[in-house]
Amino acid sequence: MPPEPDAEAREPIATTTADQAAPPSPGKARPRSPARRAAKPTVALPEDGRMRAVVDAVLPWVDGGRFAIKRIEGEKIEITAHAFTDGHDQVRVRLRWRAEGAPAINEVEMVATSNDAWTASFIPPGPGRYRYTAAAWVDHFMSWRAELLRRVDASDILLAAQTGATLAEVAAARARGEDRKTLTRWAQTLRKRALAAGKANLGHMDTVEAEIEAIKALALDATLAEVAGRYPDRSFEARFSTGTDSDHFGELPLVVDRTRAGFSAWYEMFPRSAAFEEGRHGTFNDVTERLPYVAQMGFDVLYLPPIHPVGRSKRKGRNNALAAEDGDVGSPWAIGAEEGGHKDVLPALGTPQDFRNLVEKANAQGIEIALDIAFQCAPDHPYVKEHPEWFRWRPDNTVQYAENPPKKYQDIYPFNFETDDWRGLWLELKSVFDHWIAQGVNIFRVDNPHTKAFAFWEWAIGEITREHPKVLFLAEAFTRPKVMHRVAKLGFSQSYTYFTWRNDKAGLTEYFTELSSGLGHDYFRPNAWPNTPDILNEQLHHAPRAVFMTRLLLAATLSANYGIYGPTYELMDGTPRSPGSEEYLDSEKYQVRFWDRDRADSLRGFIGKVNDIRRHHPALHGNRELRFFDTGNDLVIAYAKRDPDGGAAVLTVVNLDATFRQSAWVHLDAGWLGVGGQESFEVVDLLSGQRFNWRDGGNFVILDPADMPAHVLRIEGPGVRAKTTEEASNERSGAT
Amino acid sequence: MPPEPDAEAREPIATTTADQAAPPSPGKARPRSPARRAAKPTVALPEDGRMRAVVDAVLPWVDGGRFAIKRIEGEKIEITAHAFTDGHDQVRVRLRWRAEGAPAINEVEMVATSNDAWTASFIPPGPGRYRYTAAAWVDHFMSWRAELLRRVDASDILLAAQTGATLAEVAAARARGEDRKTLTRWAQTLRKRALAAGKANLGHMDTVEAEIEAIKALALDATLAEVAGRYPDRSFEARFSTGTDSDHFGELPLVVDRTRAGFSAWYEMFPRSAAFEEGRHGTFNDVTERLPYVAQMGFDVLYLPPIHPVGRSKRKGRNNALAAEDGDVGSPWAIGAEEGGHKDVLPALGTPQDFRNLVEKANAQGIEIALDIAFQCAPDHPYVKEHPEWFRWRPDNTVQYAENPPKKYQDIYPFNFETDDWRGLWLELKSVFDHWIAQGVNIFRVDNPHTKAFAFWEWAIGEITREHPKVLFLAEAFTRPKVMHRVAKLGFSQSYTYFTWRNDKAGLTEYFTELSSGLGHDYFRPNAWPNTPDILNEQLHHAPRAVFMTRLLLAATLSANYGIYGPTYELMDGTPRSPGSEEYLDSEKYQVRFWDRDRADSLRGFIGKVNDIRRHHPALHGNRELRFFDTGNDLVIAYAKRDPDGGAAVLTVVNLDATFRQSAWVHLDAGWLGVGGQESFEVVDLLSGQRFNWRDGGNFVILDPADMPAHVLRIEGPGVRAKTTEEASNERSGAT
Repeated sequence: MPPEPDAEAREPIATTTADQAAPPSPGKARPRSPARRAAKPTVALPEDGRMRAVVDAVLPWVDGGRFAIKRIEGEKIEITAHAFTDGHDQVRVRLRWRAEGAPAINEVEMVATSNDAWTASFIPPGPGRYRYTAAAWVDHFMSWRAELLRRVDASDILLAAQTGATLAEVAAARARGEDRKTLTRWAQTLRKRALAAGKANLGHMDTVEAEIEAIKALALDATLAEVAGRYPDRSFEARFSTGTDSDHFGELPLVVDRTRAGFSAWYEMFPRSAAFEEGRHGTFNDVTERLPYVAQMGFDVLYLPPIHPVGRSKRKGRNNALAAEDGDVGSPWAIGAEEGGHKDVLPALGTPQDFRNLVEKANAQGIEIALDIAFQCAPDHPYVKEHPEWFRWRPDNTVQYAENPPKKYQDIYPFNFETDDWRGLWLELKSVFDHWIAQGVNIFRVDNPHTKAFAFWEWAIGEITREHPKVLFLAEAFTRPKVMHRVAKLGFSQSYTYFTWRNDKAGLTEYFTELSSGLGHDYFRPNAWPNTPDILNEQLHHAPRAVFMTRLLLAATLSANYGIYGPTYELMDGTPRSPGSEEYLDSEKYQVRFWDRDRADSLRGFIGKVNDIRRHHPALHGNRELRFFDTGNDLVIAYAKRDPDGGAAVLTVVNLDATFRQSAWVHLDAGWLGVGGQESFEVVDLLSGQRFNWRDGGNFVILDPADMPAHVLRIEGPGVRAKTTEEASNERSGAT
Repeated sequence: MPPEPDAEAREPIATTTADQAAPPSPGKARPRSPARRAAKPTVALPEDGRMRAVVDAVLPWVDGGRFAIKRIEGEKIEITAHAFTDGHDQVRVRLRWRAEGAPAINEVEMVATSNDAWTASFIPPGPGRYRYTAAAWVDHFMSWRAELLRRVDASDILLAAQTGATLAEVAAARARGEDRKTLTRWAQTLRKRALAAGKANLGHMDTVEAEIEAIKALALDATLAEVAGRYPDRSFEARFSTGTDSDHFGELPLVVDRTRAGFSAWYEMFPRSAAFEEGRHGTFNDVTERLPYVAQMGFDVLYLPPIHPVGRSKRKGRNNALAAEDGDVGSPWAIGAEEGGHKDVLPALGTPQDFRNLVEKANAQGIEIALDIAFQCAPDHPYVKEHPEWFRWRPDNTVQYAENPPKKYQDIYPFNFETDDWRGLWLELKSVFDHWIAQGVNIFRVDNPHTKAFAFWEWAIGEITREHPKVLFLAEAFTRPKVMHRVAKLGFSQSYTYFTWRNDKAGLTEYFTELSSGLGHDYFRPNAWPNTPDILNEQLHHAPRAVFMTRLLLAATLSANYGIYGPTYELMDGTPRSPGSEEYLDSEKYQVRFWDRDRADSLRGFIGKVNDIRRHHPALHGNRELRFFDTGNDLVIAYAKRDPDGGAAVLTVVNLDATFRQSAWVHLDAGWLGVGGQESFEVVDLLSGQRFNWRDGGNFVILDPADMPAHVLRIEGPGVRAKTTEEASNERSGAT
């Protein structure tokens, strides 16, 4: 406890301890002892030292409560507290939670599990920011009762009965209505009988003994204990405290996002390549017309690269040529020209009204439009003239373009986050999100957030989501692990991952084990992409169909959030600009492409089936309940996800060899899958419709890449798990 | 970053960024853009958003900084920070530490290890309380230099040279004396040559190219970089922040204790049994005469059970009989009688002056007296009359004695830590420590701290050690793990452990692995006791000599702090009050005993040898560097401790079978022991003096309990490890 200089000057809190009778008469006039005088306060004391209960931990937390844990709407949030008190007294512990900024605190009684750990759960009403903590108090009624249960001596029982009567009386004073009457009556009866028995003729031992047993039974009446338990004395309640300032009562932050933050299928496409005729620049209206194509594949987020005017100065040509030729459209990430900047649309794509129409039509088909927010400017962006102070300047009085020597990106000006006008810059950048939110956009993919000031993101995402709790942010931070984690902690709802480069069984197993159960699982929500316009992974170079199938399937079943960049993906474009390069040849980043989306060999049907499987299997809507199984074959990976609510588990078995048929024995743990103790159990291959009988332990599989390189097996779970009494009771607990 | 309502009203900090030239002339009269106007501040902003560096973690910490990590005087304190910034800029990171309450902050440059982790160490000047944290800033000079190294384009190099000149100039403005001159000269030369080369006739390419190479070399001059590096621009330095309040700059607490907190050998004895003639009550003077006996065994802490007047009311008789008989001395833990209480001495033991004399004489022989502080009262303790409000009262107007129904301890009144006069109680209890500190006592063994209010200990230990940094506290909390850990976190310097009940190889291995490398290693300092007056473990019941030898040896080599309760231990008293009981028969807790300390079979010689080995081997002075080795035999345990400073390692091999000879192959890891890569190496048995040649891998041992049940082998280490340049440099860094 930290010193508090003026503690002695404060009034003590006027609360008496329930089971402590007043001391006998020595009175106030009695002189203080020399010892007491010697101890005259010269040191600082805490405000109230009578809080004997301790809340030693509240879990989970991120970085000591510095950042929020993230959960999904409707998800049960399980909290553990470590709580106890000195000596043998009983404590009661309550989980306390509230919406951020709201005065009303909700409480849930916590239940002791083992070793001084207590648990409870709650389900917040919807997306938003919340705070949670735990409080504990020494419960004198429960302590008294626990001791009485073990008392055998008659005189002790009679004294304890009187103490119990006093406790019931003070509980009655806190109670209302019928409960107050019940407690008062009980206290009176208990006291009367205890006093009478104390005076009873000790000659009639049998009668006295029987009466004492009856008094003990009355004192221990379970119904009355329940009534008294509703009116505890919490005067000396202790709360959890965190951080270096021990005065601070530690409420830990929680962010609850809507469902799509935790489960989504993204499809990225360039609107300018959406035209129905070759040679024409695509438009928002073309995209609107292609919505059914996207919906049929089962995607629920359609993500568009920047839709703003593209800079003309230093515009890059096809295949990133230094100089653009006539008619070259440039990179949409070189944002801004005389037509406008981050709040404007490229005229060739259509009007703002066309865009709003696209958003509306998409929503009507269950698809949300996600915009790409890239905070950087082309040299002719209006900001450059209007806010020269937001950029860095070189000694030759030119603006510093983006560079990572010897590489130069002369068509891109980064913002200078150390500008003296950082306030103006932050507010303007935030207003870009506000602008598009006003146009109906609720999902943003943020380009390279880790190259902008971290503090900006924490502030901007905090401000935006406080006003619009449904807005989601995907962080495109392909960088070092600690930086990616920091970006996630700052508030991004989802994060791109290293999945794109995790191609072998060991790499996939290690990475997804880390993502599902490592340090980041409370705040880092993975979004797995087999490809992006920037990353044509080597494994996809000139790859056969099976590779495109398996990479999509891995992303879709290992990660609850995943996405592809199409139509290059479903049309299996695997041509790099040069051997070994991760750049696409004739990349859409620098030119308009025309795609034959109706090609017979398109993967669109397969993708639609995979997304359909995802949608109908809650096991695939989360990441935590993931387990890998031994196959004895490095080219065959097997893993399952199970549904925490007891629905069907989904077991995926993939042949990672795109060329040869592979066989393996998949060694299951049927108990973990919820089908333990059975001779065998039926599994359904959701891709082929075939049914098999599988068993605990080894199961033979053979997978041919020329045919179907994977099984996605549905395993019926134990059914919706019946709620335990505790859980039901916890959920019943209301607000105080 | 949290909102700060009046941030906009504040003056921005007037600092310019070094490598950012002033923007060109648009001037202040230029109208604001519509976008800027639309973004008029309606939201709160942090105080300064330009702090781009991030300190994501500072480790170690305990509970997010809520409690202090503990270290020993002279120990190098290794701190790791996770720090980085957005983009490609370079950061510099400094460890910052200070004595608590002191304004002077010491800084140590941190060194990047891998993956955004940075390390540095420091050695505080002595026992006390300290704070540490880390600060990081984007270093524009280092970033500029790192970019220049990779630049190839001539015009870029010339521009960069000008930028470098500007950076050198602003560094010069922060520098003093010769450094300032050096930097200024360099800036001038660099700028002049860069400008001249820029204007040079492009016809003479060879000359120009050579000059550009020369300019680049000048700009990258390592000595000049070092000078500039001493004057960094830290205007936008970021510090570590903890807890739920992100505004709070997280300084983490550290407690440095004197050496004996980490390495000590305790000997407990009852002064009343110290008499040299049977039948006489022992005195402090007897204890003083017995100091050489204790010193010869090599103990450095002599711990006395309570020395205060013993209560007469409800006094317990021999072997805990409910009623004392005439002449029974009662339990010294039933503290207080009309002669006085916790600040007084039992007259039969002598005078306060006798006690002070004992303390002085002990100190002169290298032994410290530790007192037992048991905060509880006998019914006739003066506190009971003077402060009835400090106790609980029963309905029959008697004071509530200690009980754990159905057990009763009528001779003991616990304090009521929920008393309205808790302030008076706390101050008085603290004054008990102050009293004995004034008598020269600097070590306290606290009886059952976990049955007193936790908040009291944190406050009392904090107050006492702030005034007396050398005072140590041993917590006698034999209770549940989380409670023991909490007690340790509150500030106790050492803690009793479960060692007393860890008797088999698996139990010892698991427990000491946890103690040396588990969660508690930053705050829980184990003190291992084979016996105490309360615990005669079943393994010692009527046990042969070998058991007493091995239990002592295990305690002394597994734990840097250990103790025994004697002379019962060295005289191998293993008689329980009843079969299976942990109580001693004729326990000294309730009666005076007379011991023949000169018995020929006493273990005192063996104990002296073990303590001598401990004293001369720094490897045994700590707990962190512990490793168990496979022996292939559950009855033979082998483990080593090594010296972090490179001195000899100590390998202990113990036969846990007290009856039969056991043999085993001890499988060493010579690399870990610092003797890797050798065919074989010589080990010396410090108990027998024998020398053996051992090797990496398996080594045969055979141990006979009838003879010597253990080897304690000295393995010469690699010698004192030479300090790396980094370490030497870190240690040189002074205060700012």
